Amino acid sequence: MSIQQAITELQAVLGDRITTSKSDLDLHGQNETHFPHLPPDAVAYPETTDEVARIVRICAANDCPIIPWGVGTSLEGHALALKGGVTIDFVGMDRLLEVNDADMDCTVQPGITREALNTELRATGLFFPVDPGANATIGGMAATRASGTTAVRYGTMRDNVLALEVVTADGRIIRTGSRARKTSAGYDLTGLFLGSEGTLGVITALTLRLQGQPEAISAGICAFDEIGDAVSAVITTIQMGIPMARIEFVDEATAAAFNAQSGAGMPEKPHLMVEFHGSDAGVAEQSERFGEIVAEFGGSEFQWSKQTEERNRLWKMRHNAYYSCLQLRPGATAVVTDLCVPISRLAEAVAETRADIDASPIPGPILGHVGDGNFHAILLVEPGNHAEMTAAKALSHRMVERALRLGGTVTGEHGVGMGKLDYMEAEHGAGWDVMGQIKRALDPQGILNPGKMIRGA
Amino acid sequence: MSIQQAITELQAVLGDRITTSKSDLDLHGQNETHFPHLPPDAVAYPETTDEVARIVRICAANDCPIIPWGVGTSLEGHALALKGGVTIDFVGMDRLLEVNDADMDCTVQPGITREALNTELRATGLFFPVDPGANATIGGMAATRASGTTAVRYGTMRDNVLALEVVTADGRIIRTGSRARKTSAGYDLTGLFLGSEGTLGVITALTLRLQGQPEAISAGICAFDEIGDAVSAVITTIQMGIPMARIEFVDEATAAAFNAQSGAGMPEKPHLMVEFHGSDAGVAEQSERFGEIVAEFGGSEFQWSKQTEERNRLWKMRHNAYYSCLQLRPGATAVVTDLCVPISRLAEAVAETRADIDASPIPGPILGHVGDGNFHAILLVEPGNHAEMTAAKALSHRMVERALRLGGTVTGEHGVGMGKLDYMEAEHGAGWDVMGQIKRALDPQGILNPGKMIRGA
Repeated sequence: MSIQQAITELQAVLGDRITTSKSDLDLHGQNETHFPHLPPDAVAYPETTDEVARIVRICAANDCPIIPWGVGTSLEGHALALKGGVTIDFVGMDRLLEVNDADMDCTVQPGITREALNTELRATGLFFPVDPGANATIGGMAATRASGTTAVRYGTMRDNVLALEVVTADGRIIRTGSRARKTSAGYDLTGLFLGSEGTLGVITALTLRLQGQPEAISAGICAFDEIGDAVSAVITTIQMGIPMARIEFVDEATAAAFNAQSGAGMPEKPHLMVEFHGSDAGVAEQSERFGEIVAEFGGSEFQWSKQTEERNRLWKMRHNAYYSCLQLRPGATAVVTDLCVPISRLAEAVAETRADIDASPIPGPILGHVGDGNFHAILLVEPGNHAEMTAAKALSHRMVERALRLGGTVTGEHGVGMGKLDYMEAEHGAGWDVMGQIKRALDPQGILNPGKMIRGA
Repeated sequence: MSIQQAITELQAVLGDRITTSKSDLDLHGQNETHFPHLPPDAVAYPETTDEVARIVRICAANDCPIIPWGVGTSLEGHALALKGGVTIDFVGMDRLLEVNDADMDCTVQPGITREALNTELRATGLFFPVDPGANATIGGMAATRASGTTAVRYGTMRDNVLALEVVTADGRIIRTGSRARKTSAGYDLTGLFLGSEGTLGVITALTLRLQGQPEAISAGICAFDEIGDAVSAVITTIQMGIPMARIEFVDEATAAAFNAQSGAGMPEKPHLMVEFHGSDAGVAEQSERFGEIVAEFGGSEFQWSKQTEERNRLWKMRHNAYYSCLQLRPGATAVVTDLCVPISRLAEAVAETRADIDASPIPGPILGHVGDGNFHAILLVEPGNHAEMTAAKALSHRMVERALRLGGTVTGEHGVGMGKLDYMEAEHGAGWDVMGQIKRALDPQGILNPGKMIRGA
């Protein structure tokens, strides 16, 4: 009973679809930010749910850790093999299985990416709205309860997954939820597996809510002199019930990164980037009312457009923000933070964070999904510079303390992974022990993504 | 160690706030529909969370069942004391604790009713949108994952509860979630307790999302010759992205009940009742476009109004529908069904159900929240008429089979309680065993609302 024995048994089942080649292990030991290189002992490439169930049963019989893997865009080291074992790469399970136009839902395998899904859906007039920026897999987005720029309108993965197929730690295949839009038939297992980061079960299929392509989309950008004015404009917009589809904040450092990267020619000030979805008349009305609110809070003239090209340019810039910010300091390692607070506390959270970074030795642009009270600082550390990494981690630590002090959460959308485990006690108190009770009930051997999520993991 | 010992110990803590008077026990053994009278051994009236925790610890030490109680509007016998024990009535914990205007949230005790909450919120310009019709408590609505007429726009309790305070089976007080609008910090315990029907913990406080009172509201009603046309109009409206705040279906029998009860003067045909929320221009545009869709599907002229009085009359009629339908057969006992399917299957689900009831010996008006694919038949049984009750239960059973055959759920919003326990296996398969694993982990003694939710309960 060992990891090696599990690999031997898996080779008999999967043939060359399980590999122990150094290059493949290395690839699955990498991460996008600052966590150490932690490769698994093998990488398995299943093609069916039944194969996943067989993999899990073999691993369970051999006490071998299992780590699900999408495309590795996690910012918190979720899929690193802390205790070795077998990484399950879902690249071979990336199909759109079914679209139900009339019900505006679809069923996919976990390995399909967000962009691939929306490309396949294009002809239907429907789209999947959750948009974390990165071209992550739907399975990975579900496992980490991802959200992003559109959550203010369409919600997070919690709101957009109707049903799951999951392989449990003992290799059973269960189905949670249904295609019905709501249910009160028992415990919300769908919600429990969403955001469980591979520690309670392995997701093998997902039924998603889709949205109709809006008849019209308008988008625009405006600058403010002060962060507080930008945030006040957001609060007022929400309170007036103007339905924003996206509302993003970027600070002066991020604007500088956009200028350097794409010649955006933006004033180096705090900006809001917004989008409205609706009828032609609706988006015009919403854009105009938003423009009035911007003026009331001293923002620059709000210019909006329904042109697809202008809008694509705007959001491409936003989606590439992480990489643009990295280029502010070429070669740097990033410590990416993810604070989320009640929106009434957002202005002080951003201002305190900006001042804290400015007093530190490292650069750190701030940007985020202000309609949700969520923002990120991208702390740029010179590789190998121990003092800078210490400073970055101290800044990150103070952001977490700030989030909790202001009534928020230590991670709005990036998940726990390796980066936030130390803060679960502070956020959840005895609730963290309840999470541990659930983990031990559903994975008594502790083989599912071990070392993550739970006290003493 | 016995129920009597628990009551004796509780009397020392609560004094006259625990009662064993026959009238009080009888009141807490009643239900709104056809389930038997099942009183508890005592009723406790706590005033604080700490008192609830003390009650739970005393009951745990004595293996005494605990049943939380709101105002008893459940339609599935959730709060009946199947195995005796102590009912916790939250009438003494009914306060609005805090309102945060800027964040559009509030925190309440579980015993506050939906109407009392919205009355208290009136001056803030905010409201709590979930509306199951009955003036239920917020705690009861959360425990059963209630929804109702506005779910198509604002979602169910799952979407509108940000955070909970819960007393666990061993008497710990935990807090789940926060006032932040989203989080990815670990398992979604808030979602797990919502809809757990008092079997995993006792809810002692809730933080709710609120909505701004819309600037304008329009509402209206229209008749169709065929159910299928009404449902097609709904599907088209959803697909065109017209944001309905409510869309309710009532069949010809329900229209007859409205006529008898309130002289509504409606044609005895299928009807849709709708409401739109937004700006003045927005609700006008939405109402007009909906009117065009209605005309396309052969509906009667759609007359809409922004007058508060007309709207209140419309929704008062809808909210009283259950009682109006009961008056179709004065003195009758109701078997209330609660089917929810993907909306593409709704027309056939309603038509099959209508034909099935028409072929039976009992009357049964049909009405429901068609935007969610959810509807109810109110089966009216003569008290003591065994043949009729058998017929009603057979109709209900076939509705459940129909829901599952059409890809739906056995209960859209009424919950499991005593009425749907026998169908959990059919809906969830091995997933029901996973629910059992969670229950045993969080309530190993089985003292929380025993006899409910779980296999062999």
